Amino acid sequence: MTIRATVIGGAGYTGVELVRLLCGHPDARLVEVVSRSNAGRGLAEVFPHFAGATDLVCSAEASADADVVFFATPHGVAMEQAPAFLDAGMRVIDLSPDFRFKDAALWTRWYGCEHAAPNLLGEAVYGLPELFRADIAKARLVANPGCYPTSVVLGYAPLLRGGLIDAGLLIADSKSGVSGAGRQGGVDLLMAEVAGSIKAYKASGHRHQPEMHTQLERLAGGPVALEFTPHLVPMVRGIFSTLYFKSAASPDELQTALADAWRDEPFVRLLPPGAHPQTRETRGTNVCRIALHHADVSAGGGIYKLLVVLDNLVKGASGQAVQNMNVMFGLDETRGLEQLAVLP
Amino acid sequence: MTIRATVIGGAGYTGVELVRLLCGHPDARLVEVVSRSNAGRGLAEVFPHFAGATDLVCSAEASADADVVFFATPHGVAMEQAPAFLDAGMRVIDLSPDFRFKDAALWTRWYGCEHAAPNLLGEAVYGLPELFRADIAKARLVANPGCYPTSVVLGYAPLLRGGLIDAGLLIADSKSGVSGAGRQGGVDLLMAEVAGSIKAYKASGHRHQPEMHTQLERLAGGPVALEFTPHLVPMVRGIFSTLYFKSAASPDELQTALADAWRDEPFVRLLPPGAHPQTRETRGTNVCRIALHHADVSAGGGIYKLLVVLDNLVKGASGQAVQNMNVMFGLDETRGLEQLAVLP
Amino acid sequence: MTIRATVIGGAGYTGVELVRLLCGHPDARLVEVVSRSNAGRGLAEVFPHFAGATDLVCSAEASADADVVFFATPHGVAMEQAPAFLDAGMRVIDLSPDFRFKDAALWTRWYGCEHAAPNLLGEAVYGLPELFRADIAKARLVANPGCYPTSVVLGYAPLLRGGLIDAGLLIADSKSGVSGAGRQGGVDLLMAEVAGSIKAYKASGHRHQPEMHTQLERLAGGPVALEFTPHLVPMVRGIFSTLYFKSAASPDELQTALADAWRDEPFVRLLPPGAHPQTRETRGTNVCRIALHHADVSAGGGIYKLLVVLDNLVKGASGQAVQNMNVMFGLDETRGLEQLAVLP
Amino acid sequence: MTIRATVIGGAGYTGVELVRLLCGHPDARLVEVVSRSNAGRGLAEVFPHFAGATDLVCSAEASADADVVFFATPHGVAMEQAPAFLDAGMRVIDLSPDFRFKDAALWTRWYGCEHAAPNLLGEAVYGLPELFRADIAKARLVANPGCYPTSVVLGYAPLLRGGLIDAGLLIADSKSGVSGAGRQGGVDLLMAEVAGSIKAYKASGHRHQPEMHTQLERLAGGPVALEFTPHLVPMVRGIFSTLYFKSAASPDELQTALADAWRDEPFVRLLPPGAHPQTRETRGTNVCRIALHHADVSAGGGIYKLLVVLDNLVKGASGQAVQNMNVMFGLDETRGLEQLAVLP
Repeated sequence: MTIRATVIGGAGYTGVELVRLLCGHPDARLVEVVSRSNAGRGLAEVFPHFAGATDLVCSAEASADADVVFFATPHGVAMEQAPAFLDAGMRVIDLSPDFRFKDAALWTRWYGCEHAAPNLLGEAVYGLPELFRADIAKARLVANPGCYPTSVVLGYAPLLRGGLIDAGLLIADSKSGVSGAGRQGGVDLLMAEVAGSIKAYKASGHRHQPEMHTQLERLAGGPVALEFTPHLVPMVRGIFSTLYFKSAASPDELQTALADAWRDEPFVRLLPPGAHPQTRETRGTNVCRIALHHADVSAGGGIYKLLVVLDNLVKGASGQAVQNMNVMFGLDETRGLEQLAVLP
Repeated sequence: MTIRATVIGGAGYTGVELVRLLCGHPDARLVEVVSRSNAGRGLAEVFPHFAGATDLVCSAEASADADVVFFATPHGVAMEQAPAFLDAGMRVIDLSPDFRFKDAALWTRWYGCEHAAPNLLGEAVYGLPELFRADIAKARLVANPGCYPTSVVLGYAPLLRGGLIDAGLLIADSKSGVSGAGRQGGVDLLMAEVAGSIKAYKASGHRHQPEMHTQLERLAGGPVALEFTPHLVPMVRGIFSTLYFKSAASPDELQTALADAWRDEPFVRLLPPGAHPQTRETRGTNVCRIALHHADVSAGGGIYKLLVVLDNLVKGASGQAVQNMNVMFGLDETRGLEQLAVLP
Repeated sequence: MTIRATVIGGAGYTGVELVRLLCGHPDARLVEVVSRSNAGRGLAEVFPHFAGATDLVCSAEASADADVVFFATPHGVAMEQAPAFLDAGMRVIDLSPDFRFKDAALWTRWYGCEHAAPNLLGEAVYGLPELFRADIAKARLVANPGCYPTSVVLGYAPLLRGGLIDAGLLIADSKSGVSGAGRQGGVDLLMAEVAGSIKAYKASGHRHQPEMHTQLERLAGGPVALEFTPHLVPMVRGIFSTLYFKSAASPDELQTALADAWRDEPFVRLLPPGAHPQTRETRGTNVCRIALHHADVSAGGGIYKLLVVLDNLVKGASGQAVQNMNVMFGLDETRGLEQLAVLP
Repeated sequence: MTIRATVIGGAGYTGVELVRLLCGHPDARLVEVVSRSNAGRGLAEVFPHFAGATDLVCSAEASADADVVFFATPHGVAMEQAPAFLDAGMRVIDLSPDFRFKDAALWTRWYGCEHAAPNLLGEAVYGLPELFRADIAKARLVANPGCYPTSVVLGYAPLLRGGLIDAGLLIADSKSGVSGAGRQGGVDLLMAEVAGSIKAYKASGHRHQPEMHTQLERLAGGPVALEFTPHLVPMVRGIFSTLYFKSAASPDELQTALADAWRDEPFVRLLPPGAHPQTRETRGTNVCRIALHHADVSAGGGIYKLLVVLDNLVKGASGQAVQNMNVMFGLDETRGLEQLAVLP
């Protein structure tokens, strides 16, 4: 069986990455790419590196019959268009934030408009396969997680679920490459503005905070206090999250809990305690790498941190979307996602 | 009066930066640059951008009469050589870590060897002018702070001194450009290894941690628990420290305390609450920029962070050394340090 | 005497660089900065690194009395507005291309519109001080050269003027950092688009080609065939031009001709034959560095190349504009331009 | 059939890239990786991104039975060791320069030592499959081309062979990312030394010049004058060669000759005239992209340039080596080399 896939929003970075992964997927076939700004142009004309890999011409509206529709669009599009695809019997994987909250009021607070399909919020499954695989397999509508939340939720998940962590204060300090901001014009992301410099942004409130907070409380089964700061780093791909927490457990207990959680997961690699993962080790791959550190001597016992790295466009977006597709269609989860990192 | 200055260790990045600053200093004259690896070669031959600015030839041993000697050397050199310069009546500013601790045992624990001049540890003044100006003015021997400690100590200082902060847990998440690692060969800092990627390093114990910890406890007048993580960012210059803390004070009280501390300081700029400083705004300058943020909504009241940026080679090293020289010799503190950032 | 200077177009990279240089100029005072997009905002609000250096508020229209007006605007603005300033007795230095051609038809061919002040084209002086100093000193209106032409014309000038070069084929292969493209939105110059990659652009015809061609023929006193290719390099500042040519002269004759031309010039440094200048050695400075190479063995005698580096925003734009101002107002040419490169 | 492959020199960038490609090759199996500096360590310990892909432990000396041995070593190793492998009946693909010249004296002149296996120079086949496919298929010993020569020779080849080009002066201006310099310590390639700057190097004589010159004369069937300048660009991967030439042919004739040559080649893509390829479009792939430009108006008719881009570690080294292996073992040439560029 070959899965017929449509990508809506083919001109952005997550769209381009979906095209790359689907073109190389042995069990999927890209049947349509929708891009209003490029309608009528060949995909390989817009992105010359696709020459030879696909003959698709971008369309303005989706019309092809597909088994699955990916939304790689800015927020607000999927909530308008997804219902029709679902009604037509297609399954939907939404890489935008539209279906990540269960609570329409929370959505309105952070995204500034009414939700167009609040009735689907309950049905949508949060697409983190390592945590919610069974639900994803049966889902019609999957809300693919944000890039920062993937790194933060995967990091804390086994410890929060195991009650091994003091939920009274989690501090997530995240650093991202510039591709996370999308392929949109504007002065702020010019190379001359961001090269050779680092900054925090939206440090008093980023939309991914409530997303990860919701999932962390769900895992903890109770209230979690979460402080989150995103930073923009002068590189293209990669997220590095440094996750601080307090725990009464010993380093060994924590490492064991992590090892138990990740032992059989193809895309999460737990490193030895004290290891130093680098984002480049995950570049172009769907892998998330995690290492546990015990805190500095002066801090007394009980302070820890997790170092979590992934590629924001793959495990943090399009690769995870393909992983979700694999789960939804009963394929081996690693199909089409076996590529090694291109390094250096 | 013109201050005669010698730089020992002229081939490293802090040495080169000292040369740049001293060549442009209206009241100082560079009389000698010591560099064993470049002895006999003109400084402008080794670093062609100095052509026209200096005719000095690197020497293997210091021999010139000077008013002040700067050590821009790896650890272990200044503690051997500084006593002789002091005995000869010269003043010494040590950019290396040799004289930053009062406790020789602490030195040995972190640097792995006996201290060669333990009798000078008590006399040496920690060279953070904004905090210890009066002592620096009288000092024979100044221990110029590390780059990370400058950012962390300056950040927390006014709040710790004011008792406005919960010293039970401070979390300092720092990001540095690669010049902080020095001008030394080896595979790890090749551009092909670090470009396009971010990593933490020495995350379970970096030598700057005890340095900043010592100073923070001194400011707090009691125990402080400090967690510190350094990260390597693919840029050349700049440190960004994100400093998390708990406080029972209101945002206004904290901002006021910071404003009171920094109002008259030429090299510390407090930004409005919620501002986002960038390291590039300090590139090539001796300025440290600081902004206070109140934590994300979900964290409840009482969680804060400071964003602190500076140029690791200037305010974090050579610029601060020149500032210390200015203080020691009774000059206006900004002499030779007025340059604006070169941006973009 | 203090020169009162107005900058029109303060929001672009050449405008920002002018502000930096004029703020540090001992004999000039910035009296007004015009920026429509930032009218009413403090310059230090738009560019926070200017905090403390200037209190100017951007205006929408120039109204201050000034001795000199700099246009740091896109093409088409200066030709409309310069006449009024000249009529008011102010001198004008135009960093845009509006007055670089003598021939209005050539302007129309390359810029696609009628020239608004063709009567001034004859009067305007091409502002390359090393070549046209005497004319600049008397000029009311100076056309500041483009960044690429500065590197190419300075490179070939002494040899062309000396008749030492075969004008039948000059090949200029230039590489520029991204700041040369200006501070304008759009997808093409996003960091995610340009980092880690190099490309040529406008390789079949760039507007700087006729500019440099005109000047080279003027210097040669006859026809010159010039092939020019600009490339975009993933760095912020710097131009590197590799200038190929044939010559019947010996390497020594050529080096001597270059040495004679540049011996007394403060901003042109001729390196020894075979040296390898780097753009970073000129970063933030008004210096142009040049080295002559004899061709590879296989090419037979007679093939040469010049390696020319400069900072596109300084010697290639704003620094040269300040140098022109110094010449026009009888100051030492190096006033305000003595800064050393910030390196690394 | 599965080809058993040994890689000698597994710790360098071309070695790592070979490992990546061979791990993903459906018809090859990596049986041994030799790395003296890492002997006894797991490949995935040295390069953590290989975790899960290979369990090989680096050995100090080759001992496994293999069908093909790749040398990814500095010059001088393969010429010592290759004979023994050949004698044992294995085929050898040498990524080092040891077997690229036919003339041992030329080797000595450029590499400064006697050749250890001059008797094999005649037998060795220059491994550019697009030009010498038939010979490669039968070869025991393939000399894999250098990265610069691949770009320059492929660019000029169809036109030189067709006699469409004036061989009296070819000018190749090449720009390379830093990975081309290898994974070796030293100050020159530190990120702090090369980021944000561009330079030429060995501009008066680079070892790749005689290599490409030899091949170009072979293609032309007569003397060729070639001027070559390599530049170091602040990026990790990619070569961009701008190839200037004179021709009496029309643009259409040249484009047709190029189209005829490359129509059926899977790894060479001829773009439309005037197109602007970027190195990133080839990142991680074995593709070479080429575009023809007619010269600037002023140069008169007859001046042209080719823009050639490729990934120096893939088509310029390890990918081409795998392509050669495919040819030698009768596989489809694209086996194991179908990956799309990871972009952005």
